[in-house]
Order: sequence, then structure tokens, then C-alpha cells
Amino acid sequence: MSKSISKHMLGLAVAQMGPIHLADTRESVVARMVALLREAKGRGAEMVVFPELALTTFFPRYWVEQLADADHYYEKSMPNQAVQPLFDEARRLSVGFYLGYAELTPQGHRYNASVLVDRSGHVTGKYRKIHLPGHADHKMNAPFQHLEKYYFEVGNLGFGVFEAMETRFGMCICNDRRWPETYRVMALQGAEVVLLGYNTPLVNIHWNEPAHLRTSTHLLVLRANAYENGVWVAAAAKCGAEDGHEMIGSSVIVAPSGEIVARTLTEEDEVICAMADLSLGEFFREHVFNFARHRRPEHYGLIVERTGAGEPLPVRWRDE
Amino acid sequence: MSKSISKHMLGLAVAQMGPIHLADTRESVVARMVALLREAKGRGAEMVVFPELALTTFFPRYWVEQLADADHYYEKSMPNQAVQPLFDEARRLSVGFYLGYAELTPQGHRYNASVLVDRSGHVTGKYRKIHLPGHADHKMNAPFQHLEKYYFEVGNLGFGVFEAMETRFGMCICNDRRWPETYRVMALQGAEVVLLGYNTPLVNIHWNEPAHLRTSTHLLVLRANAYENGVWVAAAAKCGAEDGHEMIGSSVIVAPSGEIVARTLTEEDEVICAMADLSLGEFFREHVFNFARHRRPEHYGLIVERTGAGEPLPVRWRDE
Repeated sequence: MSKSISKHMLGLAVAQMGPIHLADTRESVVARMVALLREAKGRGAEMVVFPELALTTFFPRYWVEQLADADHYYEKSMPNQAVQPLFDEARRLSVGFYLGYAELTPQGHRYNASVLVDRSGHVTGKYRKIHLPGHADHKMNAPFQHLEKYYFEVGNLGFGVFEAMETRFGMCICNDRRWPETYRVMALQGAEVVLLGYNTPLVNIHWNEPAHLRTSTHLLVLRANAYENGVWVAAAAKCGAEDGHEMIGSSVIVAPSGEIVARTLTEEDEVICAMADLSLGEFFREHVFNFARHRRPEHYGLIVERTGAGEPLPVRWRDE
Repeated sequence: MSKSISKHMLGLAVAQMGPIHLADTRESVVARMVALLREAKGRGAEMVVFPELALTTFFPRYWVEQLADADHYYEKSMPNQAVQPLFDEARRLSVGFYLGYAELTPQGHRYNASVLVDRSGHVTGKYRKIHLPGHADHKMNAPFQHLEKYYFEVGNLGFGVFEAMETRFGMCICNDRRWPETYRVMALQGAEVVLLGYNTPLVNIHWNEPAHLRTSTHLLVLRANAYENGVWVAAAAKCGAEDGHEMIGSSVIVAPSGEIVARTLTEEDEVICAMADLSLGEFFREHVFNFARHRRPEHYGLIVERTGAGEPLPVRWRDE
């Protein structure tokens, strides 16, 4: 295992956000975020997690005929004029943050992205969402769309791990949290804390999913992957009803034991905090999850050799 | 995704077993298993899961100077005279089963193994445990040993998937359940049901683990990996106090929704059953966990390229 570079304790906060409606301006949203950042700082936070697509409504629920008609949802640079007050306040407070947003690059590529900003207000890491859920076609009969495969390309930066405030942070976004490969690739780079934002509709357009499962599977995957990888996980929802479209809340901070140590109670703007003992994760990675001692990659080949499921491999168990 | 070969419903049972002491004979243990098999059949089971090392006490807790002094714990063939009554009863009842045992091959190799036996009483699949926990050295000051790395070689058969009663079964053993690669490799071969036995000491010899975590992490990993892979999971404990050494129970059957649909209440011989709707797993694998549509193996390379954790990979996010 690579040597941890952590200090012992990290003040970790999640800034859950209530709905952002189509009519809301960037400026009003950023003002809410500045208020949340101040509250988090006042409660001991050094790192604050904002949601996925935190600057706009969850626009992949709406169809547009031409992608160019959606350009106003995307940021052409980060930071930019509208979000500068958040970066300025972070530097003033000496607090870092994770921010999810829609990215439109100078070359015209579109990503569901997040940045890691250090306590001096500088962007020190970037992630572009890899596991895009939903579909690329207009589903005429659905109550709303889930067009992430239309609005975004698959991320091209891998699952990066970035150092800030003597801690190794991994980033992922929403649906990435349901795929164990996400966390494993970060843990294999020494990640100690995984940050993520999400927008999860209360209704699943693919099937008539019992409502309780929407929250229970969300919490289940965060808890299990925190444990299996010996990492802290901090997950921030955008939630409540955006122009009538409901999304789940239940933002949480999860310890490497798989235990939820903080969770939100509302579906509105709300800050939760925890003092994250980073040595706890290190401890798990030295014993039950000592990768170097216990992992057996020679038996994991199919994980990279296959995308979808195929036929069972032959097993020569009768030979001996 | 490969086409499912399932029928709709599978009668699935877990036959948890209470302690097996050093003084207990194979014959007395097999008689208990025959009784459990009959009860399971009477409650609609077609497939019954017995624990890991189900024919003996959990002997890796004891040190011996010479491995040859432990030969009596191992089976030299499967079936053999002592277990034949179980195989005969399975054929008579037309019930299949999973059985964990210590295997000593004609060539002298030692494995922590399991077999899948079909309803005609024939061995139709074998697994040899890959994620061996514990240590290979004698820990003089520990209250007991966890010598799986001493008593067993790492399994050489991979994570196989075997067809029986029109269902695709994967097998794993105890500590394998805490490693997400285990389930993923099986799911990539179309596994619909994952069977496993375990012996989990109540006390963790590596650290002063809070007792509640022993059960909560056990349930957590079974639930999350069932969900993330769209499989049913049936997990059978050997539990209670074997010659004074306590082990956890909490045998469960978990649905592909991550929900526990049956669990034991005792730490003794106890049967639990569920009618497993295999189409539920197929449904998950067609939507949220449609591997072919959503997985991105080009970003998973580290899972097979690294064993232990290393330095973060460079991320060229400033290039564009």
C-alpha cells in the first residue's frame, strides 16, 4: 500500500441544495452557495461538497432539438464571472470545495464535470463523469427525460485522485456511485476521501420502482463502497422539486466502517458536517482490506476484458 | 448482455449450522445436514446452501507444527464415504446443494473449497477460495489463530459460473464476499444466484473492532453486491461457539434489490427459504445495471494492473 499522506482529522461538510428552477439565475444560486460555505466554515469544515450540476436545474430532464439550444446550461470556463464570488469566499475563508457543473470546452466537447478547489481558491483537480445513465433519444411518452447520454460525452480523464490539504481526494458524480469500479480505481491510487454530487429523480422512468428503493440503494452503495475501499465518502444531493420534478435528498457522510455519520433531514439547502478521522480508513486498508496482501488481480481479468456479460468461462475443475 | 437461461422462480434455502466441535464426528455432522436438507425440501427448496468448512470445526483457528498433522480435517475425495448419505438424500429428494469443505488433492494441494451438487446428486461445479484472509505465521499472543494463508493455497479455478436446474450459479466463500471483484467476475459470466458459506469469528484478532460492525459489514457487502450485480445471494453461516470460540450467524438470502428477504434468528442449525424470482435480477441487468450500455472498462485498468495501492495517475485535465 502506498503510504498515507494524511493528517489525522479533516473537517468535512456536505452542502446539500434544494431545487434550482429554470427561472433561477446563476447569481442567485451562487449566493445560496456562498451562504452554505460560510455555515460550513463556521461548523469546522475545511472541505465542502456541492451537488452535481449545482449551478443549474437538472436540465437533462428536458429535450431540445439542437444541443446548441442548451448552451446556456454549460460553463465555458471555470471559474467564470458568475461563480467568482464562491471562489473568492473560499479563499477568504480558507475552505476548499467540490463543485459539479456542465462543462462546454473551447473545442465544443460537453461533459458532466466537477472541480476540486483548494483553500486558496484554485482549481486543483477535475473529473468528467464516466458512467452516464439514461438515454440519448427523445422518449415521447415518458413523464420526463433522462438525457445524460445526449447532453454529455463519456468523461476522458479517468477516475483521478488529487492532493489538497494533505489529503487524497477522489471525485465521481451521481450514477458513478453505483459502480464498484469507480471507488476501486480511486482506492488503488491511495484515495482517502471520495466526493460526489448527485441529482436522483424520485421516480424511475425505466420501471415502476418502489419509492423506498430509491433511497435505500443510494445509501447502500455509498456505505458498502466506503467500507470495501477504506475511504470516507461525502455525497451531496440537489433535491426537492425542480419545477415540479421531485428528487431524493439523503445527503450523507459515510465513514470507512460503512456507517453513516451525518445525514440531511430536509430536501432544501442544508449543511451537514463531520470530523473525518483519516487514520480510520488507513487502518482498514492495513488489515481486512490490505490490497497488497489479499487482492488477486490474476482472477479479475473479465472486469476489463468484457463490457457486457457473456458466457461462463470453462472451469477445469475435473483435472485435479 | 447474454440471454438469461432462467426459469422464473427458484426455491432457494440456506441451511445455517450451529457449532461443530473438535470431538464431533463427520457422521454426526452429515446426519444434521441430512435433517436440514429434508426440512428445506419440505419448505419448497430446490437448492440448499451449507456453510464453509461445513464438515469440520473451523480448524484454521488452531496451529499445528506440521500441515500433515491436520490431514484429518481435509476431504481426499468428494463425495466420500462419510458424506455419501447427504448426496444420496439429495438425489432422493431431487434437491441440489452447495457444500463447503477442506480439500486435499491427490497431488497434495490444499484448498478451502466448495462444490455445487445438482438434484441428481452429481458434483457439477467446484470453487476454491481465492481471497484467503488471516495469516500464515503462528501468532503466539493471539486468543486464537486465523491461519487460512497457512492451511490453504490460493484457489486456482477462478470465479466459475455453473448451470444447474436451468439457473446460473456462482460460488464464493466467506471473505470473498467483501471483495467486489468476486461478484463482478461472476456477473460478467451471467451469474443469477451467488452461493456462499462462511465462518466469521465474533472477535476480530487484528483490532478491537466494535462487535456490531461484525454483523453490519457482513450484511452490507452482501446487500450491496447483490444489488450492484443484479444477482440473488444466499449466504450460510457456521456459527455459535465451537469449543468456546464464538462466530456470528445472520445467514441471509438477499434479492437483487439489495433487500434481505430471509434471515436466521438463531446461532444454531436453522433453515431459511425464499422463492427467488430470477427475472428480478434480469430486470436490473437490463436497466440501471445494463453492463453493455453503461460499463467503461477502458477506465478500469488499474483493477488488474495493480495489486496494492500506488501513487495517483497523472490526469491531464489542464490540456483542455
